[in-house]
Amino acid sequence: MKIELASKYGFCFGVKRAIKIAEDNTNSRTYGPLIHNSKEINRLKENFNVGLSENLSDFTTGDKVVIRTHGIPKNELKTLNEKSIDVIDATCPYVTKPQLIVEDMNNQGYDVVIFGDESHPEIKGVKSYAQNNVYVVNCVEDLELIPLREKIALVAQTTRKIEDYQAISNYLIRSHKEVRVFNTICNATFENQDAVRDLSQKADVMIIIGGKNSSNTKQLHSIAVSKCENSYHIEGPDDLEKTWFKDKKHCGISAGASTPDWIIQQVINSIEKI
Amino acid sequence: MKIELASKYGFCFGVKRAIKIAEDNTNSRTYGPLIHNSKEINRLKENFNVGLSENLSDFTTGDKVVIRTHGIPKNELKTLNEKSIDVIDATCPYVTKPQLIVEDMNNQGYDVVIFGDESHPEIKGVKSYAQNNVYVVNCVEDLELIPLREKIALVAQTTRKIEDYQAISNYLIRSHKEVRVFNTICNATFENQDAVRDLSQKADVMIIIGGKNSSNTKQLHSIAVSKCENSYHIEGPDDLEKTWFKDKKHCGISAGASTPDWIIQQVINSIEKI
Repeated sequence: MKIELASKYGFCFGVKRAIKIAEDNTNSRTYGPLIHNSKEINRLKENFNVGLSENLSDFTTGDKVVIRTHGIPKNELKTLNEKSIDVIDATCPYVTKPQLIVEDMNNQGYDVVIFGDESHPEIKGVKSYAQNNVYVVNCVEDLELIPLREKIALVAQTTRKIEDYQAISNYLIRSHKEVRVFNTICNATFENQDAVRDLSQKADVMIIIGGKNSSNTKQLHSIAVSKCENSYHIEGPDDLEKTWFKDKKHCGISAGASTPDWIIQQVINSIEKI
Repeated sequence: MKIELASKYGFCFGVKRAIKIAEDNTNSRTYGPLIHNSKEINRLKENFNVGLSENLSDFTTGDKVVIRTHGIPKNELKTLNEKSIDVIDATCPYVTKPQLIVEDMNNQGYDVVIFGDESHPEIKGVKSYAQNNVYVVNCVEDLELIPLREKIALVAQTTRKIEDYQAISNYLIRSHKEVRVFNTICNATFENQDAVRDLSQKADVMIIIGGKNSSNTKQLHSIAVSKCENSYHIEGPDDLEKTWFKDKKHCGISAGASTPDWIIQQVINSIEKI
């Protein structure tokens, strides 16, 4: 069986940057997981003593906190700064951008629509930069329930599919005087998605590697499965099942933006043994 | 044969308003045709002595000029005002709006994309309100040739189809940081188009009445023909052909925004005789 990696996959600029920041700040803690990959977070703990706390109240004066790639809500950042905590910001610059757009557009009187997952930390953070008239939607149907005014500013979660974003935009354009569409989907997302689309048209089994709660990995899997029905989302080699590869000739592999190369290599080694 | 009018058709707000303005200003001349309907223009000449001049230089101090519904280029309006001509503006307010948007966006440093027909008077006028970095496109393919910068403002000719406008917007959203989409398609266009779409799915012959150079009538005809292949664009009863109605059971009728009711009635009378 041929094993082929997508032409673009894995670590994006923001994740590489955040890991470098964490490695440079030993004896610190992240507030929430730095990236959506528990194996990499364990590595940072073991090799650099970068810990993890899920509660804001765990941080007190004198602590060193690393802000996760997804960012955190504005009021929580304020609380940390007020406590004289050493705040090291590893928020991906591509996430900081929609935060600032949402704040600016809201101040200018636009209704703000965020296309994303309301429960995802990135979106909780981005949404917090608007004071009012801000709505998170996951699909066109969600929009039908919202009494939007004439002028709309639209941003997207960095990891969303452009086609879905266009559907949201198309719906709004039809019935609103001005729709200010900010393309906040990051380039790495675009490139990884395009590459997985190409590869899954050729492969007869697709393995997508990444954290189970990683939004961009889920999107990669949804693209793969639309082109190749034997597509599987795994976190690491332990999740592989022999039956997936029976009578298969071409195995395609891709990985989310928070999946380190060493995990990808472990998966490839395991598949080769199968 | 059943004859059925579309639920919405014919004169829009801007055309009604312009005709009222012309009727109130006897012994004047329009600069270019007031609306795209030569029969109605003849009526204004005969009943109200509202003439028509195609050349700017025909107007001199003391004249009374009525500005057409489609508007005119900014510098030509300036020339008329400088000559101390009595300028009566019958530009449709829905056309004035994209003119002002284009001027404002261009001043704010946006590249301006106008979706429309470069040779149409409305678009000549709208385009003239930008000083530079303004582009008129008729389809997505036109966009591929233009070196646009990151921030785009997008407006549409008032009479365009929303689906085509969305295609332009979708193309731009994919590759630009900000696309500020102004929905400048007028409501009458929307309503007449929706109504002709419905009717042409039921009828077996469709008659669309309006000036041959009327953009919105052409759009109505293109929608009709996509649902009912026996769809014909006529200017008045003289254009009707008996063979169109042979063995037909249901004749649908619609008319462009510049088509007066008296022409529509003449057409219905003629079809009834056939």
